[in-house]
Amino acid sequence: MRIAVIGAGAVGLYFGARLQIAGHDVRFLLRRDYDAITTAGLTVTTPSGDFHIEKIQGFRDSREMGEVDLVLVALKAFANAHLVEMVRPFMRGDAAVLTIQNGLGNEELLAAAFGAERVLGGVALIGANRGEPGVVHHLAYGAIRLGEFGGGPSPRTEQLAAMFNAAGIRCDAVADLRKIRWEKLVWNIPFNGLCALTGHTPAILLARPAMRRLIAALMAEVIAGGNAQGLSEPIPQNGFIEEMLARTERNTGSYRPSMMIDRLEGRPLELEAIYQIPLQLAAKQGIEMVRVEMLHALLTQGEPT
Amino acid sequence: MRIAVIGAGAVGLYFGARLQIAGHDVRFLLRRDYDAITTAGLTVTTPSGDFHIEKIQGFRDSREMGEVDLVLVALKAFANAHLVEMVRPFMRGDAAVLTIQNGLGNEELLAAAFGAERVLGGVALIGANRGEPGVVHHLAYGAIRLGEFGGGPSPRTEQLAAMFNAAGIRCDAVADLRKIRWEKLVWNIPFNGLCALTGHTPAILLARPAMRRLIAALMAEVIAGGNAQGLSEPIPQNGFIEEMLARTERNTGSYRPSMMIDRLEGRPLELEAIYQIPLQLAAKQGIEMVRVEMLHALLTQGEPT
Repeated sequence: MRIAVIGAGAVGLYFGARLQIAGHDVRFLLRRDYDAITTAGLTVTTPSGDFHIEKIQGFRDSREMGEVDLVLVALKAFANAHLVEMVRPFMRGDAAVLTIQNGLGNEELLAAAFGAERVLGGVALIGANRGEPGVVHHLAYGAIRLGEFGGGPSPRTEQLAAMFNAAGIRCDAVADLRKIRWEKLVWNIPFNGLCALTGHTPAILLARPAMRRLIAALMAEVIAGGNAQGLSEPIPQNGFIEEMLARTERNTGSYRPSMMIDRLEGRPLELEAIYQIPLQLAAKQGIEMVRVEMLHALLTQGEPT
Repeated sequence: MRIAVIGAGAVGLYFGARLQIAGHDVRFLLRRDYDAITTAGLTVTTPSGDFHIEKIQGFRDSREMGEVDLVLVALKAFANAHLVEMVRPFMRGDAAVLTIQNGLGNEELLAAAFGAERVLGGVALIGANRGEPGVVHHLAYGAIRLGEFGGGPSPRTEQLAAMFNAAGIRCDAVADLRKIRWEKLVWNIPFNGLCALTGHTPAILLARPAMRRLIAALMAEVIAGGNAQGLSEPIPQNGFIEEMLARTERNTGSYRPSMMIDRLEGRPLELEAIYQIPLQLAAKQGIEMVRVEMLHALLTQGEPT
């Protein structure tokens, strides 16, 4: 399959590299690592061994990337002002676009520009950070869950899931994309924000009883907000939270969430996708996520006005 | 009057200096500034002109300070483990003890040790910071409101108020000490915590609409918590908040609250007096101060376990 990867941060580079190794024709839109990657290739460190890809097809402009079958979008949501223009050159044929960006609102943006039938969404369940130019550190997990923006099962989601699985990326196709997006927010909303705000990793936060209670309370608010959207089935309240906390401690306790890194490196934060739009959707259904709103207000403080 | 000042931070030094200039026999328990102040005196900068006191009676140990009529406590509440032992040497005669420390629980500590009839409480309405050793910067306000721990009007509170007023410190004696303590918390709870957490001054926070709404919401929670305590009359909800925000912008917008300075200088925070005890008292009356609790949890993160 011919695949364009848009947004070559740790997540985009990692999944693209796996797909290329599996034999696909993968083309990367690169920015700050263009020189390093096109001259020296891409190195991926993983818990199960490192690998290096010598020859990467890197581009600086999506208009030069040719025709593809799939556009895989892993762009930071704060750069969404440029997303539609980046994707447009691929939308002449019948290519599909799969966004695995964080938060809510990304599929809507693409669907408004190119039609809902082109658009799929997914959540990336992965701990990965960039290292020096041309290096990605894969730390934990590495799965994708995806579905049609329009909802329901489809042959296309099954094919894409099979492709990812064959490339060593665990992937489920689901009928309810909104549910998996809200499930991921249950983790992202507390940990992305609190780690960015405090500069501490999840394990450090979870070790404090008052913070652990706060994290659980934030998760409960997100679950209530999600369940008010009329998901295909509700996200369970209690077991889900305890399991997520335990899994975080076990697997990604020392992981620095992307928003924490963005703040440490002086980049903008993905506040609209991860906080603002979920807050608006919850409020529309009469759910006031008080603590989420407070966390959002605190995070805005460090942002440009 | 013979007055012992316990806790010689900016607030204790400023009020003590005013009382000494007014002719009182003021004795200071000093720690880190002992050498600077006993050799070179105390300098106070104020918006209406600076002054210098050459000769300060400084002591390192309250057992050497002799008999006094009034003990004025301005100690940081996080040092309260030592408060009773510091005050005990003065409690042989019929001295009164007036604590103008931040938050709740200070009078209770003194009353349990020395009897409620000895104890008065007050709130210091003042913007003051320490400068280099031996220098205090008085920035704004400079008033005290005080009352009997046991409640009600008393000749003693009237005398003390007259003494402070004669020394150029605006002072009211009130019948309901708890009410003025909660009223002060309406300011301290949002601004002390948010300024310490973000490293920004009140004016910077108030300039952000989301933060301004959060500050107002925190204030509303504190008012609800205070009013549930059965104050002599309720703290009004709306006008009070708007007026407090406007007054803060006008007068103390660029002021660094004491908790912000404590955090910047690596000292512990007055979390028990300003957050924990108010949260407990509100919860006891069935009032859940959700945002206050969240702010408290966030502030504990930087504290020693």
